[in-house]
Amino acid sequence: MIKVGIIGAGRIGKVHITSITTRVPDAAIKTVADPFLTEETAAWAKSMGVEKTTKDYHEIIDDPEIDAVLICSSTDTHSPISLEAIRAGKHVFCEKPIDHDVEKIREVIQALEGTGLKYQVGFNRRFDHNFEALQQAVAAGKVGKPEIIKITSRDPEPPGIDYVKVSGGMFLDMTIHDFDMARFLAGCDATEVYVQAANLVDPAIGEAGDVDTAVITLQMENGAIAVIDNCRKAVYGYDQRAEVFGSEGMAAITNDTQSSTVISTGSGVTGEKPLFFFLERYMDAYGKEVAAFIDAIVHDKETPLNVMDGLKPVLMGLAAQKSYEEHRPVKISEIV
Amino acid sequence: MIKVGIIGAGRIGKVHITSITTRVPDAAIKTVADPFLTEETAAWAKSMGVEKTTKDYHEIIDDPEIDAVLICSSTDTHSPISLEAIRAGKHVFCEKPIDHDVEKIREVIQALEGTGLKYQVGFNRRFDHNFEALQQAVAAGKVGKPEIIKITSRDPEPPGIDYVKVSGGMFLDMTIHDFDMARFLAGCDATEVYVQAANLVDPAIGEAGDVDTAVITLQMENGAIAVIDNCRKAVYGYDQRAEVFGSEGMAAITNDTQSSTVISTGSGVTGEKPLFFFLERYMDAYGKEVAAFIDAIVHDKETPLNVMDGLKPVLMGLAAQKSYEEHRPVKISEIV
Amino acid sequence: MIKVGIIGAGRIGKVHITSITTRVPDAAIKTVADPFLTEETAAWAKSMGVEKTTKDYHEIIDDPEIDAVLICSSTDTHSPISLEAIRAGKHVFCEKPIDHDVEKIREVIQALEGTGLKYQVGFNRRFDHNFEALQQAVAAGKVGKPEIIKITSRDPEPPGIDYVKVSGGMFLDMTIHDFDMARFLAGCDATEVYVQAANLVDPAIGEAGDVDTAVITLQMENGAIAVIDNCRKAVYGYDQRAEVFGSEGMAAITNDTQSSTVISTGSGVTGEKPLFFFLERYMDAYGKEVAAFIDAIVHDKETPLNVMDGLKPVLMGLAAQKSYEEHRPVKISEIV
Amino acid sequence: MIKVGIIGAGRIGKVHITSITTRVPDAAIKTVADPFLTEETAAWAKSMGVEKTTKDYHEIIDDPEIDAVLICSSTDTHSPISLEAIRAGKHVFCEKPIDHDVEKIREVIQALEGTGLKYQVGFNRRFDHNFEALQQAVAAGKVGKPEIIKITSRDPEPPGIDYVKVSGGMFLDMTIHDFDMARFLAGCDATEVYVQAANLVDPAIGEAGDVDTAVITLQMENGAIAVIDNCRKAVYGYDQRAEVFGSEGMAAITNDTQSSTVISTGSGVTGEKPLFFFLERYMDAYGKEVAAFIDAIVHDKETPLNVMDGLKPVLMGLAAQKSYEEHRPVKISEIV
Repeated sequence: MIKVGIIGAGRIGKVHITSITTRVPDAAIKTVADPFLTEETAAWAKSMGVEKTTKDYHEIIDDPEIDAVLICSSTDTHSPISLEAIRAGKHVFCEKPIDHDVEKIREVIQALEGTGLKYQVGFNRRFDHNFEALQQAVAAGKVGKPEIIKITSRDPEPPGIDYVKVSGGMFLDMTIHDFDMARFLAGCDATEVYVQAANLVDPAIGEAGDVDTAVITLQMENGAIAVIDNCRKAVYGYDQRAEVFGSEGMAAITNDTQSSTVISTGSGVTGEKPLFFFLERYMDAYGKEVAAFIDAIVHDKETPLNVMDGLKPVLMGLAAQKSYEEHRPVKISEIV
Repeated sequence: MIKVGIIGAGRIGKVHITSITTRVPDAAIKTVADPFLTEETAAWAKSMGVEKTTKDYHEIIDDPEIDAVLICSSTDTHSPISLEAIRAGKHVFCEKPIDHDVEKIREVIQALEGTGLKYQVGFNRRFDHNFEALQQAVAAGKVGKPEIIKITSRDPEPPGIDYVKVSGGMFLDMTIHDFDMARFLAGCDATEVYVQAANLVDPAIGEAGDVDTAVITLQMENGAIAVIDNCRKAVYGYDQRAEVFGSEGMAAITNDTQSSTVISTGSGVTGEKPLFFFLERYMDAYGKEVAAFIDAIVHDKETPLNVMDGLKPVLMGLAAQKSYEEHRPVKISEIV
Repeated sequence: MIKVGIIGAGRIGKVHITSITTRVPDAAIKTVADPFLTEETAAWAKSMGVEKTTKDYHEIIDDPEIDAVLICSSTDTHSPISLEAIRAGKHVFCEKPIDHDVEKIREVIQALEGTGLKYQVGFNRRFDHNFEALQQAVAAGKVGKPEIIKITSRDPEPPGIDYVKVSGGMFLDMTIHDFDMARFLAGCDATEVYVQAANLVDPAIGEAGDVDTAVITLQMENGAIAVIDNCRKAVYGYDQRAEVFGSEGMAAITNDTQSSTVISTGSGVTGEKPLFFFLERYMDAYGKEVAAFIDAIVHDKETPLNVMDGLKPVLMGLAAQKSYEEHRPVKISEIV
Repeated sequence: MIKVGIIGAGRIGKVHITSITTRVPDAAIKTVADPFLTEETAAWAKSMGVEKTTKDYHEIIDDPEIDAVLICSSTDTHSPISLEAIRAGKHVFCEKPIDHDVEKIREVIQALEGTGLKYQVGFNRRFDHNFEALQQAVAAGKVGKPEIIKITSRDPEPPGIDYVKVSGGMFLDMTIHDFDMARFLAGCDATEVYVQAANLVDPAIGEAGDVDTAVITLQMENGAIAVIDNCRKAVYGYDQRAEVFGSEGMAAITNDTQSSTVISTGSGVTGEKPLFFFLERYMDAYGKEVAAFIDAIVHDKETPLNVMDGLKPVLMGLAAQKSYEEHRPVKISEIV
């Protein structure tokens, strides 16, 4: 039985608490820490079987009984807490991104070296039933050699401006998931990125120095060309599709809906919109990623998304930002 | 070059005139006859290359140059004109149904005997790209041995009450196409029919002694069970679907639309309604059925829908009417 | 907190144990009873938080602390245990069917009278996301007045012959779900049933006196005509679809698949088969039905599927069997 | 009645001959000219009602009875024959592209000035039922302000290497249709293009100095970003899809198939591949574009695709080629 500590009891922390208690028989949550822990959350955690709650995450880091830590706190704390946890000899599951600063991710990489500790970064979409099946089809050679990879990723609504200002920019905050997906589907890294982006959704986003709409082209190492299209606002819901085209065919996935109901009337033939909320769409994936992390610990094997998988999309995001600013294709190797 | 005479220049007569002049290189229309022929129609026919127009169809029957006759006049004239044409040695394409009176169809059958003349009845749906592909899949064994055959056939709007009164009833007027389709898809005859029907669309139809909604079960000779659902009014358009389920799988077809456009908005994900008008849906099929008729003459082979294929659905329609009236399953062999 | 006892720890009992422990915060399982309880199952139940396991279900019936009983034992025990539980003052959730013998269901109805106890029967499909959305669309008037209701229900593979022999026949064993669905979608009872059935899948089923393929027509009280098509074996998976056609439109649902992946190659454009296994397709529905039962107890309201909803489909199944045997439409009122 | 001359009786010339004779009542073909005219083609043209056939297109240019000329000859003759026809006072329908040399197109523009003659360029896809419906939805504001436009355009098989060598390169030969489509859907011009391209399909294409796979990003004047993905070989058929995403929603079109047949078996649920051959997919569109040209003459109105619509995609193609060669975004205004 793996003893787990969870740092951060916000939206995503609660998802992981629920997953571990209901779906991961090999793990038990000993402690949940959150500096802003409410009594309500503490009570709920207790009802889920969590032993202990605290406002100080050091009670997790310093607890020799705890084997593994899930870092679900704010982005700026991911790398420092990762370092503390690693130095305390704990396996780490860290929400994405590890950091926006490549140097800090490199520190985490160095800290891990030789420890044998497991480190997993939370790119949940790899565990979604659709993306997983798509990747498996590609890896099984169903489409031959990949030539064109297309990823559509549009949020149902933009985040608040306060969040936009500290988000690191759309490429590091939102597209980073798609960068990971491009690597996952292609089965290799990107070598170059070109961005065409604009501020079309909300002028306030532009005033905050960010973009909200983009088409991003990636040259992949295996010769395939990938293209991501992003928008911060799709009125019809959370739009998450992908397509891999290759020498022997094409595999494509589309969105999930609440039901398959289609209504035909004098006005048209209408089906349901894509699920609106990312937690609804990816709830099952969140459960599977945490189960995979615990499984890697229990069976002492590599995590499906290790620390290098955390680094690469950040490099791509920084190259994308540079491409946007300098209006030219940027090699990933330009980012140091 | 087959010389053709067309009797009846109404809606369907005009469709055949257009098909022959634009799509059937082996045939030319010499004469078009219609008792209510307008100058406008006559001028249009001339512009399409028709040699001659007349109000008297005997100018077609009596013309030794004419090889083949298309009977597109009102239903009550189908069998008498068929007889006249056959006796004048002409090949006949006759719109469905040949007659509502089985005896009169039997006279046509007798008249044909030994003449070597071609006779084709106008069940156009067999030539529709969807139904044709479905039948070919079934005939090719793609679903194994057929077990359940489902046909949905719903009109976009009911005919006028005056027409309902002389239509012979829904089973002989509308379901007759589906009876033919059941035979086509099953590759065999029906032995028994059971009808559950009602007057739900318009009370005037009930007052005229007819039904407008029905579920009709057929026992097919090969063991399969077929079920047809009919309604005189589907507000979303002309609904023409079918499904054949068998020991090795299922093949299904759906409706055609004007385009594949799907619009996703805050209100839902909306595609186009099925094509509303039967001529729009089946225009291509009308061309193909006439081409097949001419081809049978030119190459001296059996027509794809001979006079027996005209008789069988009428027997099924009469059995259906009897089942409805007596509220019990009726064997086709009860109809004499 | 509602204390629950579960009688029967087979496949479906385990599903309910999992649902209650992970999804129903207002209920806790005190005791699980099964005459064939293995040590493995007992250990698993303990790990899920079940207090006690036993081979004797009377330890549940006789336990004054237990508020509600879930009857998941073999069909022949459903009505006797229901009676015992009711007499012991416990709320009852009973798997379908309550009994094949109408008299025994009537005894349960009588036993319930005046007790104020909740009784729910396990027609899980009403809680499936697709069927639920379809019913809601119909109830909200999206298709106007229902005219034709179509239910396709085909199993991926037939049960073993030993089971077939004690199943009560296909209509009471399999179609019974569809009879409930017809009532659910129509929002009313059926008055008459007509069956066209055959033994096409496996001769052994016929030798056991049963059918495996059927088209069943129902006259509903509200004027709509319903039609169910059943087969014990669909090679492509568990086929569970429905369509409600009415005066203002049509609503239809289709099957669920593991993912939305579609692969286009030189051979065709191929999507996934429907989910094969009923537990996979309806897992979420099983959780929701039990949550609804607990909710009815906690908030003292009617269960969504009460004892009369358990009786009606049995009457329909018996009428269907009679229709098949006598080859005629049978009124539900003929069954006493 | 507009008298038409057709120059070039190859594949596309024959399509136009058929369209005009069967679908365009206001036009008649007087003369067909082709330097390689076979007796077979001449006989076929006669049977279609063409008055005269010749090997010398000057018999069309010099014929005062002929009102309009369709130029369906090889690409290098498009602009010189356009000039001759305009100088002879004839309306011109010219297959795409007018020329690969911008100067030569400018000569055609100058020649047209002040003549009042109609000039139409043959971007047939604008007349396809799907693309037409998509553009209408966008123009009607169904998706709000366009933000992202996606065009997928993949050929079923690459052309022969001999053709590749004289094609002007993929961007001017194949993508040119998509450049036109981007303008059509956006309702405005592009200002900049960026190309990521590769030679993945056939090394011989690379040796001929061309690419066969590309993702092309366009900045449109109205702020929208367009992205085209091309491949010379899609094993599953001719892949022609598009999607317009905007502030109020998304409209998308997919491919046409021969029928809607879907077959479910133990191996999967398989529908038909997209139509393979461009003439099959766009046959109807070819008819509609010629009808629109004749209509513009008869009713003295602007053609739907005038000479400037012929120039713009060539500029885009040349910019795309420059972007590929210089590996940077290129402004359309850089092309002179």
